[in-house]
Amino acid sequence: MSDPLFRVNFERLKTDIKTLSKIGRAEDLGINRTAFSDADMQARGWLASRIKDAGLEFYQDGAANIHGRLNWDGKLPSIMTGSHIDTVPGAGHLDGALGVMCGLEALRVLKENNTELSYPLELVAFSDEEGAFNGMFGSQALTGDISPEWIHSARNLQGLTLIDAMKRQGLDAMEALSAMRSPDSIRAFVELHIEQGPVLDTKQIPIGVVEGICGLQRWDISLIGVANHAGTTPMDMRNDAFQGVSEFAGEIERVLEEHGGPLSVATIGRIELLPGAANVIPGEARFSLEFRDVDDQKLQEIADAFRLTLSAIARRRQLMFEFRVISDIAPVACNEQVQNIIANTADKLSLPAFSLPSGAAHDSQKLARITDAGMIFVFSKAGRSHSAAEWTSWDDIEAGANVLLNSLYQLASRADA
Amino acid sequence: MSDPLFRVNFERLKTDIKTLSKIGRAEDLGINRTAFSDADMQARGWLASRIKDAGLEFYQDGAANIHGRLNWDGKLPSIMTGSHIDTVPGAGHLDGALGVMCGLEALRVLKENNTELSYPLELVAFSDEEGAFNGMFGSQALTGDISPEWIHSARNLQGLTLIDAMKRQGLDAMEALSAMRSPDSIRAFVELHIEQGPVLDTKQIPIGVVEGICGLQRWDISLIGVANHAGTTPMDMRNDAFQGVSEFAGEIERVLEEHGGPLSVATIGRIELLPGAANVIPGEARFSLEFRDVDDQKLQEIADAFRLTLSAIARRRQLMFEFRVISDIAPVACNEQVQNIIANTADKLSLPAFSLPSGAAHDSQKLARITDAGMIFVFSKAGRSHSAAEWTSWDDIEAGANVLLNSLYQLASRADA
Repeated sequence: MSDPLFRVNFERLKTDIKTLSKIGRAEDLGINRTAFSDADMQARGWLASRIKDAGLEFYQDGAANIHGRLNWDGKLPSIMTGSHIDTVPGAGHLDGALGVMCGLEALRVLKENNTELSYPLELVAFSDEEGAFNGMFGSQALTGDISPEWIHSARNLQGLTLIDAMKRQGLDAMEALSAMRSPDSIRAFVELHIEQGPVLDTKQIPIGVVEGICGLQRWDISLIGVANHAGTTPMDMRNDAFQGVSEFAGEIERVLEEHGGPLSVATIGRIELLPGAANVIPGEARFSLEFRDVDDQKLQEIADAFRLTLSAIARRRQLMFEFRVISDIAPVACNEQVQNIIANTADKLSLPAFSLPSGAAHDSQKLARITDAGMIFVFSKAGRSHSAAEWTSWDDIEAGANVLLNSLYQLASRADA
Repeated sequence: MSDPLFRVNFERLKTDIKTLSKIGRAEDLGINRTAFSDADMQARGWLASRIKDAGLEFYQDGAANIHGRLNWDGKLPSIMTGSHIDTVPGAGHLDGALGVMCGLEALRVLKENNTELSYPLELVAFSDEEGAFNGMFGSQALTGDISPEWIHSARNLQGLTLIDAMKRQGLDAMEALSAMRSPDSIRAFVELHIEQGPVLDTKQIPIGVVEGICGLQRWDISLIGVANHAGTTPMDMRNDAFQGVSEFAGEIERVLEEHGGPLSVATIGRIELLPGAANVIPGEARFSLEFRDVDDQKLQEIADAFRLTLSAIARRRQLMFEFRVISDIAPVACNEQVQNIIANTADKLSLPAFSLPSGAAHDSQKLARITDAGMIFVFSKAGRSHSAAEWTSWDDIEAGANVLLNSLYQLASRADA
């Protein structure tokens, strides 16, 4: 007996996506729904009403994560899906919101069909994924990764604390400590998200099966030479800090080719030269280096190779070399069984799918610490994201929603899954 | 009959240099004697009294240039020497001041010896060489290179106009138009200055004979790619503006070797990346490129080669490329006869001398437009300049002063010189 194939109610899903996209939208400037802003609160209220309209059980935990539950009995572990509805400033209509809307639609369809399920289903919209405050607040509260100190130190760029921001909205931030879930209470987690990268667009494939979420290291590096007169100092008597950085930048591709995988990336995104005048040889260059890989060992090898390369360049050019590791986040593998279910589901729906890592961070990487987690990527035009230029065709959205719906069904319907 | 060799009164010169260095000095922060500041006015007053004390004729022209004259008759062209006593903020005690003090000492010695001269001698301390306002105000007024518009537009970093700054000190800036001298009134010009570069220090040679003053071009360049997510955009799908700059920076040495001379220089001293975040691939890099050479044709060839290199890199990396020429100043050759007189004088004094271009700008490059000009460089430790770390030994100062004194004598004593 073959499993049934469900289909989302696409017009309903489309209407929901469009309705949510109007909350916090500024003409031409994209959507502003930063966490615990009035627009975010309005969106949360609307989502709560949509959950209740669907006959799902509404629940808000201590981190203000919004839950919609189907067949919840407080005993059986849930199959969880979700993402976030907060945005960066000037956002598009898909990032985060799409995963929540498709999750809601999946639960609605399974409820409407009175589908027989072995496990309850749970939709979650996580608080402050985008980091208006510290970022991934809701998912980290749920996985038990925040502390009272974490909550007290969180503040936004304007200096407003998370505690005050939540208080303004009638919420108690310290309650987030109560949102922690036992690993036993979640059987699996699946998040749908736009790719935010160009791989599916380049390959013209609608569905991505995420293999893992890249780890990353972010370094602040200083190369220190000697500032000198740009007119009177011969080329062979210079200790030009910028020439050191340039040489290093030229070695990035080689280091990745030698020590990384085909999808390793590294970026110098920020640089400051001191004193920074056209007629002075740079005496110091301060710059960022960020590199990511889905394989932890490769990430370490890349880090070692960058360190060697930098120190060799510094030695040869008689520059001093200082660096500080600002972030060091380990890669997270997606669960293989969840990956197989997503891939098989896409296949049954006759949708081409491609396995790839996620270069961006997601709530899933927190959930993967306590449960079997997986992600479905949908095509995003040119990978544009965190921008009003974000775009995915409605056909691709429908395709992704159907993959999520049937993957959740597979996970929830089989006791052996 | 061999010419006499004169010697400066070194203790008197040393005392003058030390006395002037106390005017405008802030403890540990170097000397602040920016043009038309109170400290500058105090220094001018002191210099005027030293000129009068020496029995030289004091004259102040419309640009507030201070002249000290020996044997002036208003008919015969003068042999002129000088530099400036204004400073950058936080300056050392030598830059500019040394040339004025050594020039004053030279005129004093020739006067004390009742030396027979064919031409009058003229010491000048030029106003605002350092550019508190537009820079080289005094020398350009003297050579007729300023206009009423130039005077009206000149203002300092605080927004104070040159007109107001001079008015505060009882001076009328528009009178600078009256300071213009006929080329017929100046037979030659010699300026003594510290090298402000490391060449003489490296070679351990006390005296530099300046071949010419480097021309320079200064460009503002933009390389424009596509800003994208540093985690989700594979390396082979990037248009990284910073990688373009780095590749270009790596070609600078080659361009100079292929198209320049041994003392050509080029510098990237300033760069800004947009948006400038560690996790975003730079979509735009704006940077300065400055290059100098003493040979005008080489300077043009270097400019052409940089343009070709930039456009090839931009084309290959699919970056847009814009540039704007901010400065384009032609090199100035020093007069060969004046160079020979300086070199021969050093030889007669048994002082090793080395010919080199000046990478820095000087009043001499303005004077060279209307008369036979030359420069004497003295050793400066590590080429440090525009800094309280500026240093030249008293022995090297005495050596330079004696070269200036005897070179001026050579120029002034011979009708055929």
